[in-house]
Amino acid sequence: MNSQLLLGIDVGGTTVKLAFIDEEGIIVEKWEIATNRDDKGKNIMKDVADAVLAKIAEQNISKEQILAAGVGAPGYIDVENGIIVEAVNLGWKNYPIQEELEHLLQVPIVVDNDANLAAGGEKWKGAGEGAENLLAVTLGTGVGGGIIAGGEIIHGESGLAGEIGHITSVKSGGAKCNCGKSGCLETVASATGIARLGLEAIQLKPEGYLKSILDETGTLTAKDVFDGAKKEDETALGVIKESTEHLGFALANLANALNPETIVIGGGVSKAGAFLVDYIRSAFNQFAIPKIAKETTIKIAKLENDAGVIGAAWLAKQKRTSV
Amino acid sequence: MNSQLLLGIDVGGTTVKLAFIDEEGIIVEKWEIATNRDDKGKNIMKDVADAVLAKIAEQNISKEQILAAGVGAPGYIDVENGIIVEAVNLGWKNYPIQEELEHLLQVPIVVDNDANLAAGGEKWKGAGEGAENLLAVTLGTGVGGGIIAGGEIIHGESGLAGEIGHITSVKSGGAKCNCGKSGCLETVASATGIARLGLEAIQLKPEGYLKSILDETGTLTAKDVFDGAKKEDETALGVIKESTEHLGFALANLANALNPETIVIGGGVSKAGAFLVDYIRSAFNQFAIPKIAKETTIKIAKLENDAGVIGAAWLAKQKRTSV
Repeated sequence: MNSQLLLGIDVGGTTVKLAFIDEEGIIVEKWEIATNRDDKGKNIMKDVADAVLAKIAEQNISKEQILAAGVGAPGYIDVENGIIVEAVNLGWKNYPIQEELEHLLQVPIVVDNDANLAAGGEKWKGAGEGAENLLAVTLGTGVGGGIIAGGEIIHGESGLAGEIGHITSVKSGGAKCNCGKSGCLETVASATGIARLGLEAIQLKPEGYLKSILDETGTLTAKDVFDGAKKEDETALGVIKESTEHLGFALANLANALNPETIVIGGGVSKAGAFLVDYIRSAFNQFAIPKIAKETTIKIAKLENDAGVIGAAWLAKQKRTSV
Repeated sequence: MNSQLLLGIDVGGTTVKLAFIDEEGIIVEKWEIATNRDDKGKNIMKDVADAVLAKIAEQNISKEQILAAGVGAPGYIDVENGIIVEAVNLGWKNYPIQEELEHLLQVPIVVDNDANLAAGGEKWKGAGEGAENLLAVTLGTGVGGGIIAGGEIIHGESGLAGEIGHITSVKSGGAKCNCGKSGCLETVASATGIARLGLEAIQLKPEGYLKSILDETGTLTAKDVFDGAKKEDETALGVIKESTEHLGFALANLANALNPETIVIGGGVSKAGAFLVDYIRSAFNQFAIPKIAKETTIKIAKLENDAGVIGAAWLAKQKRTSV
């Protein structure tokens, strides 16, 4: 192997995903290691460096082939200085990750938030391929997001931009959110939020498909609610309509302000596929400026678990190979 | 006069505002001419060029002192190619304004939407001085807006970004908007919208300050509603609360996604000053992520009618003097 390579690193709470990616965005080699959260995560980057050095020996890659590396991490990041201000899940606080990893690997490093890099990945090689203006929203346990405008990730004044999950959806009486306010999009459009809405609906009307699943399994998931809706169970359909109306409203208003080419929906909930997109589209068209409703594409994300490493490599290519 | 100058041009439906501005953003000379909308506006740029050439003769400015010119115009603009796709008020359609004015003046020209340039003006020398991340909203007959992120105007995929006035505020049963949908922010937060809400409130409860003004003058303006609210007239206060709650909600959700340093409120309605900001702030804090509520500044615009020419000069400096 002797082409030039980018290294993508996606640090999660359970595993760190790693990949060597060529300049066209093709994954050449990918693997993962366990995230060691002991001692406030102080060994994670050491483990990453060891894993990378072992891999280049194994794959006969020379150090000189690695142009740059991008790192995606959860939490609140000072992108300019390459510092993780706080990543609660990993134990990092004011952690100079860029400096440390440059020291360990001796290659140029760039760092960004994992949700922003997932957006970058989908922009480079995924559902938003080539889009210079893109919104990415990840519907998982929570709701994450990334905004790309004019080809660049939007960070905002203190790195909080892209927090689509904390757009207020329910003006009054909404569920409490981790962020400190109530009625966030996350409380109604995440997997957790959809399951919660399902349970609330059963309490009001204890019958039908969702009730039978709850009785059978003792629990209710977002997937159960989608399954019920696809079977035209009235309660489940009501929940999906409520949830996607909030999501379509939030995305339409972002699109009214930002005029993206493409909106990419990822995360576990996006496995509901075209069924989900159709419901979001219906609400989106109701609340978007007609020209924007007509021109904006809404798609399911394509890269799944690879979005983070591909986005990290995209950022590395964009920021560090041009210097 | 022998310093280097930027030329700012702000084309409106009634007048074209012009100014020579130095590289520090100080207005050296400003004046205006009438907008000639005859023959689909085909003489407007000729009039502008004649006015500029007359002014440089009068002021003893040499052509070589003019580094570049920026033009702000209403409507839908192809910024990259300097073409006004459509400006209904002026009669322009697919009008190559950049090419025409470069031909007439023989200086580098850049073009952008007037609301975007007003945002640029406030960023350069106004209430948002130095902010790299700024939202500007103009509450006039309509509601306009401009978004600056990472120091650059956000245009979106087809130049529609910044249309803050067409964010949906009233989900169902909202007033019809010119854009083709209903319940836009513009229908409840523009001067026109506030007056309309006032009239609706009087119909429901025909008494108090607003009713007396309507009886006396035969009409009701947004200023009347603010005057009534400041006098603690219950109906007027109710209207201002409703209007600013919609505005605070829309701005908070934009801020949740974009994390601006500063939000600048301009236009005729902004003459209500601190009273207006206090009401917007109250709603904003309710709907913004706590850290964003704490860190985002909300200010009344400072430049008034000069925002457009200063913003045009800012863009000219940024884009054309660096080539």
